[in-house]
Amino acid sequence: MTDASQSQRSRSHRVDGLQYANWSEDIFRQMREGGVDAVHVTIAYHETFRETVLNIERWNRWFEQFPDLIFQGRSGDDVRLARETGRIAIIFGFQNPSPIEDDIGLVEILHTLGARFMQLSYNNQSLLATGCYEAEDPGITRMGREVIREMNRVGMVVDMSHSAERSTLEAIEISERPIAITHANPASWQPALRNKSDDVLRALAQSGGMLGFSLYPHHLKDKSNCTLQSFCEMVARTAELMGPERLGTGTDLCQDQPDCVVTWMRNGRWTKTLDYGEGSKEAAGFPEMPSWFRDNRDFDAIESGLRAAGLSDDDVAGIMGENWLRFFDESFGSGAG
Amino acid sequence: MTDASQSQRSRSHRVDGLQYANWSEDIFRQMREGGVDAVHVTIAYHETFRETVLNIERWNRWFEQFPDLIFQGRSGDDVRLARETGRIAIIFGFQNPSPIEDDIGLVEILHTLGARFMQLSYNNQSLLATGCYEAEDPGITRMGREVIREMNRVGMVVDMSHSAERSTLEAIEISERPIAITHANPASWQPALRNKSDDVLRALAQSGGMLGFSLYPHHLKDKSNCTLQSFCEMVARTAELMGPERLGTGTDLCQDQPDCVVTWMRNGRWTKTLDYGEGSKEAAGFPEMPSWFRDNRDFDAIESGLRAAGLSDDDVAGIMGENWLRFFDESFGSGAG
Repeated sequence: MTDASQSQRSRSHRVDGLQYANWSEDIFRQMREGGVDAVHVTIAYHETFRETVLNIERWNRWFEQFPDLIFQGRSGDDVRLARETGRIAIIFGFQNPSPIEDDIGLVEILHTLGARFMQLSYNNQSLLATGCYEAEDPGITRMGREVIREMNRVGMVVDMSHSAERSTLEAIEISERPIAITHANPASWQPALRNKSDDVLRALAQSGGMLGFSLYPHHLKDKSNCTLQSFCEMVARTAELMGPERLGTGTDLCQDQPDCVVTWMRNGRWTKTLDYGEGSKEAAGFPEMPSWFRDNRDFDAIESGLRAAGLSDDDVAGIMGENWLRFFDESFGSGAG
Repeated sequence: MTDASQSQRSRSHRVDGLQYANWSEDIFRQMREGGVDAVHVTIAYHETFRETVLNIERWNRWFEQFPDLIFQGRSGDDVRLARETGRIAIIFGFQNPSPIEDDIGLVEILHTLGARFMQLSYNNQSLLATGCYEAEDPGITRMGREVIREMNRVGMVVDMSHSAERSTLEAIEISERPIAITHANPASWQPALRNKSDDVLRALAQSGGMLGFSLYPHHLKDKSNCTLQSFCEMVARTAELMGPERLGTGTDLCQDQPDCVVTWMRNGRWTKTLDYGEGSKEAAGFPEMPSWFRDNRDFDAIESGLRAAGLSDDDVAGIMGENWLRFFDESFGSGAG
């Protein structure tokens, strides 16, 4: 690390916009080693409300067990507190609206329990919006409009990472507060169903929203063989399209997860036959991470890569965490209503 | 009201230790008219976790609908805020441990959602303790000991209002933080199964716990015909037994509730035959309130009655709310662990 970047590190916060690891003390320690102050963690894919509460209970036990490493983050100030106290603020989110079931009142209940992000759909059609794997995208549903308004009111961020194009554009339009795509890349770089068109990215930026760059190999050019240079040049190009202040990371790191977990992510309980999602029958498990980002200790590599791609110190500090921190400050409190 | 009591009112807080009204804008306005700054409201009798969450959702709608009248109280400071802003702090509690089902992790979840009191049993045997209508009382159960420790940790008050004698004495002994009997009277005054022996009241006081005096007619001498003088003289005698700083009100006011609600309170889903609780087949409904305490506008009568019974201004201020406020300050935050 150069002196300049060390100095940058001492001033700026490092925040990751999405992870879903098989959490353990080892991973929490690696996060601190990697300078991570806060992370948005997925606590539900297909879980019902009650199952989501069980997942929160599991986190509560970790908070009780590792108070010197982690605590529950509910605000931007908690990210600052994490930095000051050498811990990690853990911020809850859902990749699917299944935790609210068909009950809009659960939006506020789950916000009180700490949820700060919710995807309106995950690959499939939901009660609220369409997922990116559906053949047809009829846009935001009647309940979807009501839930977006309620999320705006209580301060829960609309996340459209796994949603389809029309639904995403409509969510940006309908939401009175900026939304996020916490973990995806531009489709112009890697044409995956999960990556986003320039139309979506422009609309997202114009509305004040945030994009978190994914390190999940299926979202990368050349997948597991993607180079750091290719990734960082893509970030620099996206900064030209969206403005650097609209960008962060959302590594989608699924560290130490067994392959049964990606099967759960893809299949939940919605199918009796196996869906391989972005994988295939021959490569059904989690893909191998790129060599330059294996776990939370590798954020310095990205930071250096972004500098090498020509981004300014301020832009790099923004992308590595300050932009998410500003967005948290603006998004997690109650809205005008 | 005398000048002296007006001056007292301007200095001290008025808190009621338990109500279960059929809530409405009218009742909230009557509370303000009666100078009530905070009330512990029952939000579950026999409800499961999910049903309790539905009850919280209903309260959330009321908080949204009447922000100038009420808000959710979570701390002693919220009682002060209520007084300063002319509103009522609504503090959640359960009369039964049914909301935590068989899952100790739900104690913290429900504390996060605002629950600050939980009875370990309601008339019958529960998973945690014995109710006052059971023939046998084997005391606090294995799970009960664990749950008391968890309630101590998170800051949820153990309430033994409807519990049996041995269970109550054991809860006082086991709990590392003071407990409460939010709504009951001395059995020496009115020998109801729900009222408490001098042994229990002495142990409660010695451990720093609180007794809230009930105005529910079945707990009163001469029931609906109880006189204000008899009630206030009983309070004065109890102040000699327990110390005036251990006392508050817990009116158990069930204003505007239809009789089907008392049937639910008594029977839940645990019996196929009707249990009449403290009532009878001939008088199965809610009993008529005493003429001097019909609703929240009548707290001044109690305050005057306590003065007439010879209690000092300070003691009266304590019993009308300051004692509960101090107890909230000490009880609702997280414990040593």
